[in-house]
Amino acid sequence: MERKILLSEKEMPQAWYNVAADLPTPLAPPIHPVTKKPVGPQDLAPIFPMELIKQEVSTERWIAIPQPVQEVLKLWRPTPLVRALNLEKKLGTPAHIYYKNESVSPAGSHKPNTAIAQAYYNKMEGVTRLTTETGAGQWGSAISFACAQFGLKCKVYMVRVSYDQKPYRKSLMRLWGGEVVASPSKDTEAGRNILAANPNSTGSLGIAISEAVEDAAKHEDTKYTLGSVLNHVMLHQTVIGLEVEKQLAMAGEKPDVLIGCTGGGSNFSGLVLPFVPLKLKGRPDLRFVAVEPTACPSLTKGPFRYDFGDTAGMTPLLKMNTLGHTFMPSGIHAGGLRYHGMSPIVSHLKENGLCEAVAYAQNPVFEAAVMFAMTEGIVVAPETAHAVRAAIDEALRCKAEKKARTIVFNLSGHGHFDLSAYDAYLNKQLSDYEHPEEAIAEALTHLPKMD
Amino acid sequence: MERKILLSEKEMPQAWYNVAADLPTPLAPPIHPVTKKPVGPQDLAPIFPMELIKQEVSTERWIAIPQPVQEVLKLWRPTPLVRALNLEKKLGTPAHIYYKNESVSPAGSHKPNTAIAQAYYNKMEGVTRLTTETGAGQWGSAISFACAQFGLKCKVYMVRVSYDQKPYRKSLMRLWGGEVVASPSKDTEAGRNILAANPNSTGSLGIAISEAVEDAAKHEDTKYTLGSVLNHVMLHQTVIGLEVEKQLAMAGEKPDVLIGCTGGGSNFSGLVLPFVPLKLKGRPDLRFVAVEPTACPSLTKGPFRYDFGDTAGMTPLLKMNTLGHTFMPSGIHAGGLRYHGMSPIVSHLKENGLCEAVAYAQNPVFEAAVMFAMTEGIVVAPETAHAVRAAIDEALRCKAEKKARTIVFNLSGHGHFDLSAYDAYLNKQLSDYEHPEEAIAEALTHLPKMD
Repeated sequence: MERKILLSEKEMPQAWYNVAADLPTPLAPPIHPVTKKPVGPQDLAPIFPMELIKQEVSTERWIAIPQPVQEVLKLWRPTPLVRALNLEKKLGTPAHIYYKNESVSPAGSHKPNTAIAQAYYNKMEGVTRLTTETGAGQWGSAISFACAQFGLKCKVYMVRVSYDQKPYRKSLMRLWGGEVVASPSKDTEAGRNILAANPNSTGSLGIAISEAVEDAAKHEDTKYTLGSVLNHVMLHQTVIGLEVEKQLAMAGEKPDVLIGCTGGGSNFSGLVLPFVPLKLKGRPDLRFVAVEPTACPSLTKGPFRYDFGDTAGMTPLLKMNTLGHTFMPSGIHAGGLRYHGMSPIVSHLKENGLCEAVAYAQNPVFEAAVMFAMTEGIVVAPETAHAVRAAIDEALRCKAEKKARTIVFNLSGHGHFDLSAYDAYLNKQLSDYEHPEEAIAEALTHLPKMD
Repeated sequence: MERKILLSEKEMPQAWYNVAADLPTPLAPPIHPVTKKPVGPQDLAPIFPMELIKQEVSTERWIAIPQPVQEVLKLWRPTPLVRALNLEKKLGTPAHIYYKNESVSPAGSHKPNTAIAQAYYNKMEGVTRLTTETGAGQWGSAISFACAQFGLKCKVYMVRVSYDQKPYRKSLMRLWGGEVVASPSKDTEAGRNILAANPNSTGSLGIAISEAVEDAAKHEDTKYTLGSVLNHVMLHQTVIGLEVEKQLAMAGEKPDVLIGCTGGGSNFSGLVLPFVPLKLKGRPDLRFVAVEPTACPSLTKGPFRYDFGDTAGMTPLLKMNTLGHTFMPSGIHAGGLRYHGMSPIVSHLKENGLCEAVAYAQNPVFEAAVMFAMTEGIVVAPETAHAVRAAIDEALRCKAEKKARTIVFNLSGHGHFDLSAYDAYLNKQLSDYEHPEEAIAEALTHLPKMD
């Protein structure tokens, strides 16, 4: 039996799958924070190219992947679907465990799937420069890589605390030609205001978003990019699940449980959205499991409400599971999962009973990641480790119930830049922090009022 | 056209290719440092398992790869052979450039190809614990990963200066269950002697080898492992070239130039040895190019002589290109290429006109690596960057000569743990140091006398 199920480049998806075409009820529209009316394309045009704005609201089922985007994706796609035989043996489970290995991209995660598409559409519309924010740096490095491929300039506002503490993601961005500044910076009004009030500010994702958006809005040649949450980002990630569909068929497997970690929701969506039609028609027992940290439990503890996408309250209001835009998650190592909200699409699935969510604390998550490294070899990112934990628990349930289910999880990224987190785990320095209910309730009192 | 030429697991090589069967003249035997006679199996038995000792001196053309070794190799093998279309376009060359991507292994390089085999044979002979030395940590992490796969204990003596300055390779070893100590350590007599003389010693590969060998020799349950130089290591790496043979045939290509960087010689050998019969019979124009740093030019400036494998002069004498075992290479970033000697097999090829060698300084090497990252996406290891430089120069020669040659280089490892080296390059802090001829001449006066 082959461990790795490989597709040829000819078998790559030619179109992205748009779940909006198949949802039983429509997605709630984004709302203008002042008028409280749905935002129109003209509201978004200063910061996004028109093609991406169209994709954001499209209800077409299939959207063709442009040939130049496919060509770049072929640098690492299709990615392998791998049977985790060693892990199965270690667990003594009758389950079949598969992982989709998105860590093989140059930037080390699934993020380039959308970065490449976004860079391409901007290039086509005459944009010559992109801005974005980044926390630990996964998204910033993906967009720097994408800009290198299409000859665009790129400026990344990187949260100061990560800029100082995690130098190597910054090095990676610079290597690919990206300009990286610590945020808050002196390059924007938003940044200067923060620095004037607090010269030692360590920054936040919210501040960095404000800076990147301002930079894009103020420069004719520049647009803004976002690596998760929005509908068009989820769309671009569906290449993952579309490949998995073919690969499972090749292996003669029918999936029972699909698992992904969720911060903004993009790697989870990429894996599960193409399977939504199957769940709606004929396989109601097919389960989609979103895995989040107990330190930032938006899906398991946040209500489904309109809220700002950023901390500062500058973006349109999105209907989503949220802990409130003023929520401050604790400093867990899975930086990519520290977001107060959740993709409106994932939130909609959850609200409509189409997906489940589970939350884990850090120690059980790293315990799973070490077991995975010892058996399958790969050192996964702390974010991905959440999906590994859930996959192992599902497999152990199969063992207890003596049922052979097929479990697929998304190996969304490697942990080569996160080894200090593993050190902390091995040295027993990780906290199993759970965000207190009262703090969540308090943050929720700041949700914007809807008339 | 497909960029990536993929093999299925069924197409993996079933046997290693042993070039000793086809060399026009036999390899010179290793010599006992005291008796000056060829060493026998009994001399090596305290530190190596018998099966590896047999492989070291075998002249059988094919040696079967045990099934359990193949099973572990399947975690990442066969590896892709990739057409570097973007790089070709950037260079405007008529050449076809291919790279064999060995960076996809869990440890990030070709090193696990032999680590897995060595761990297996030790396990089969009842060994329960392995020792080794490591500089920057590539080999130490490969052997830790291999020991995790076969349930062996592992102790890595890591050169003190790297132990302190490169914490993440150390983290990787610990994550896979390896015990890592800074060398010189208090755990061996060799280490204690050094520390007594100089408590602040930053260590060296030579000292670390002495410690690892002593540990193995003194413990019944323990053997020693080496990641390069020796014949059995070159043997295990031939899976690389055997796969490339099949992949080039699938692409309808005939190779003209095969390129690999050389420190101890193992990734270069892995790629080129299976092509030696082709060069000897029918394709005398087929070129094998070994690429080394000007800071440690063993093949380009070292004579072919008997010398010790280690700095301290404890090992058998090997006939090889050497700069003298007391040679101290400068602190270039390509740590894996800082070795005074060279694989006896590679040296033998060079001596017999079967391969060429070229040396590069650091800046042109990193310039090539950045061009590769900007076009093909992958951030290569500083060692590998030497092969990238040579491949680019060969492709530029094709352009000048208007000849479409097929160039294949071994992408032996990724640079995810070497980003500080890229930072230094981008900040113009790298030296183009060339080791002075006089210093080499002086080091050569310390070669052991042969009667």
